[in-house]
Amino acid sequence: MTETKMKPLAEQMEIIRRGAVEILVESELEERLAQAIASGRPLRVKTGFDPTAPDLHLGHTVLIQKMKQFQDLGHQVLFLIGDFTGMIGDPTGKNETRKALTREQVAINAATYRDQIFKILDPRRTQIVFNSSWMEKMNAADLIGLAAQYTVARMLERDDFHKRFSMQQPISIHEFLYPLVQGYDSVALEADVELGGTDQKFNLLVGRELQKGYGQKPQSILTMPLLEGLDGVNKMSKSLQNYIGITEPPKEIYGKVMSISDILMLRYYELLSDVGVVELQKIRAGVEGDPLGRHPMESKKALAREMVARFHGKEAATEAEADFILQFKKKEIPEDIPEVASPATDAVWICRLLTEIGLTRSNGEARRLVQQGGVKIDGCRVESDEHTVEPRGSVVIQAGKRKFVRVVFAS
Amino acid sequence: MTETKMKPLAEQMEIIRRGAVEILVESELEERLAQAIASGRPLRVKTGFDPTAPDLHLGHTVLIQKMKQFQDLGHQVLFLIGDFTGMIGDPTGKNETRKALTREQVAINAATYRDQIFKILDPRRTQIVFNSSWMEKMNAADLIGLAAQYTVARMLERDDFHKRFSMQQPISIHEFLYPLVQGYDSVALEADVELGGTDQKFNLLVGRELQKGYGQKPQSILTMPLLEGLDGVNKMSKSLQNYIGITEPPKEIYGKVMSISDILMLRYYELLSDVGVVELQKIRAGVEGDPLGRHPMESKKALAREMVARFHGKEAATEAEADFILQFKKKEIPEDIPEVASPATDAVWICRLLTEIGLTRSNGEARRLVQQGGVKIDGCRVESDEHTVEPRGSVVIQAGKRKFVRVVFAS
Repeated sequence: MTETKMKPLAEQMEIIRRGAVEILVESELEERLAQAIASGRPLRVKTGFDPTAPDLHLGHTVLIQKMKQFQDLGHQVLFLIGDFTGMIGDPTGKNETRKALTREQVAINAATYRDQIFKILDPRRTQIVFNSSWMEKMNAADLIGLAAQYTVARMLERDDFHKRFSMQQPISIHEFLYPLVQGYDSVALEADVELGGTDQKFNLLVGRELQKGYGQKPQSILTMPLLEGLDGVNKMSKSLQNYIGITEPPKEIYGKVMSISDILMLRYYELLSDVGVVELQKIRAGVEGDPLGRHPMESKKALAREMVARFHGKEAATEAEADFILQFKKKEIPEDIPEVASPATDAVWICRLLTEIGLTRSNGEARRLVQQGGVKIDGCRVESDEHTVEPRGSVVIQAGKRKFVRVVFAS
Repeated sequence: MTETKMKPLAEQMEIIRRGAVEILVESELEERLAQAIASGRPLRVKTGFDPTAPDLHLGHTVLIQKMKQFQDLGHQVLFLIGDFTGMIGDPTGKNETRKALTREQVAINAATYRDQIFKILDPRRTQIVFNSSWMEKMNAADLIGLAAQYTVARMLERDDFHKRFSMQQPISIHEFLYPLVQGYDSVALEADVELGGTDQKFNLLVGRELQKGYGQKPQSILTMPLLEGLDGVNKMSKSLQNYIGITEPPKEIYGKVMSISDILMLRYYELLSDVGVVELQKIRAGVEGDPLGRHPMESKKALAREMVARFHGKEAATEAEADFILQFKKKEIPEDIPEVASPATDAVWICRLLTEIGLTRSNGEARRLVQQGGVKIDGCRVESDEHTVEPRGSVVIQAGKRKFVRVVFAS
């Protein structure tokens, strides 16, 4: 590890706070950082990842980006692969999707992780660790000792357990042991900080409790939001088809970033970009209509370039951008489509929508335009004047040859 | 093991049922016994005992007596000492009385058990086993697999857990693991039958479930009642001072057995004595006043002799009896005291009681007798005519020199 002088406390905290939902306990973290700065001993920052086949999308990289920030601040990041429980699988045999992983599969998955995360993280400042390396040495008596550190009632406070228990859906007792294993990882690693999604908050707090029980100073926890997908509404996920995979081709990544709304772009900037705090303010100002701010279209292109460059290099980013611009010229679609917000929460009649967003002057005109085949939604011609639009995310509506509007729905 | 032909099924079942509260599932046990008889393969009968210092009283021997019956029927009894959890102690550190036992202490306790139980059991047909021998080999992953076999909701059905959970008293998660360990003992031992007190029913059923989960035929379980102490009301226990310890001197054991009520004597016969079913009927008939039955006083003496002989030998029993008779002659207390039942549930005024049981003709006469110092309860003079008697168990009331009545309370 390179011994460089660390940034002052306030500057570190500003970077650490960026995009974070919650830091518990913030004063403790500040104290720790102050000590790290004074002593030159970097903090040990743990983040846990699933041992199953990783095919990362930008949603996953929110945490990795936060790890990178800690790393750039001179701290030690611990990329923990929770292979121990993965190699157990689901012992009840009820969960087909949670079959036990073999040691070979874990090794393959780890290699895939490595390929992907080192596009963001610095390998020299990243330690990849497997919890099997301490959990496999643990015997039944030790695990009983671990289980003694937490009560049934407190475990049932975890949202999903609480719901299932109230709904009388079975919870196997081993499921109570998994958060304890995850928490014990913090003990084994002597973590100073643990990062996780907001959905991980309970487990991160278990880590705090266990560290206290084992005589350690409890870790500070930092939760990051779950990144919204391209629709700007739902959590980014493969199953919803609203994701940008980090192994997707440059053109795909570029195009998908360009398709998001301006508001979502701000979110992506905050959570995914290396752009500094000052620049971020200019981008935000532009979206908010400030003439001194950066033009949203320019900002979006810059973000698309940054994402492509991160996973495919700068050259690929330049190419993707050139290609994107050419495509739009050919299709005679303007690069810069004006956005209109719609408060609609129920499916809305296309003709009414056209009029509301100002593309037609009346529903009658709209109906005639649809009947003539002059209306497209996301590039597809609307075939019926009875068509309705679901108010989810955003859609690009084209009326005639040259009029385009991106409708951004509230819900 | 001596290969003798086993008794027929019906006869075995009659012996096995004696005194039992519940057999689950009886038809399964019968099936197993039939197979054992046909194949000559004895059943494996498990009973678990606490690893802490054993100082057995007759209450403990109810189970040991049932083990002996299985043994006499040709089956293999497994005396399980649950040392694994004992050696863990209470990991929360909250329970002062459950400190971790050392291996040396376990060995000492086992030797003490051996000394005591072989006064009843045949050492050649008894296997003493320690659950540490398989549990210490179990690793954390195996224990997680075990925990997967049972749900939180079902564990919370156990009476004490349910109460504590409802009362919002903390239950540590490791406490959920202990019944699973006990149940797993049945898997490790491939038990056909497990015996336990009625308070153990839940844990015995866990054993059944786990055996199913591990692909074994689930054990049959048999629960025995908790033996009442000398008062005939409360469970026999050291803390209540209503026990007969099996290491007590012959005179003590003899005298204590002689002090119990006729009804309690029947219970002790059923649960503790080697006396056969036919003889038991005669004894019962005598207590119920049948002139063809055995006289209760004779039955009680025989039981006292049997208990002394069991733990100290026949000679000691004869001596204890001779001594007892001599003592009574000296004190001019009749050996055979008539019993009177009292329905009283609240404390009852001594004068009223004397009249009710027919020792005096009126409360006035009773009061004078008390004032003259002519009334004793359990050998102690009643000093005040305002005295009240708590309606618990039974007391011997003496009026004047020669009138004795044993009052047996209903509650």
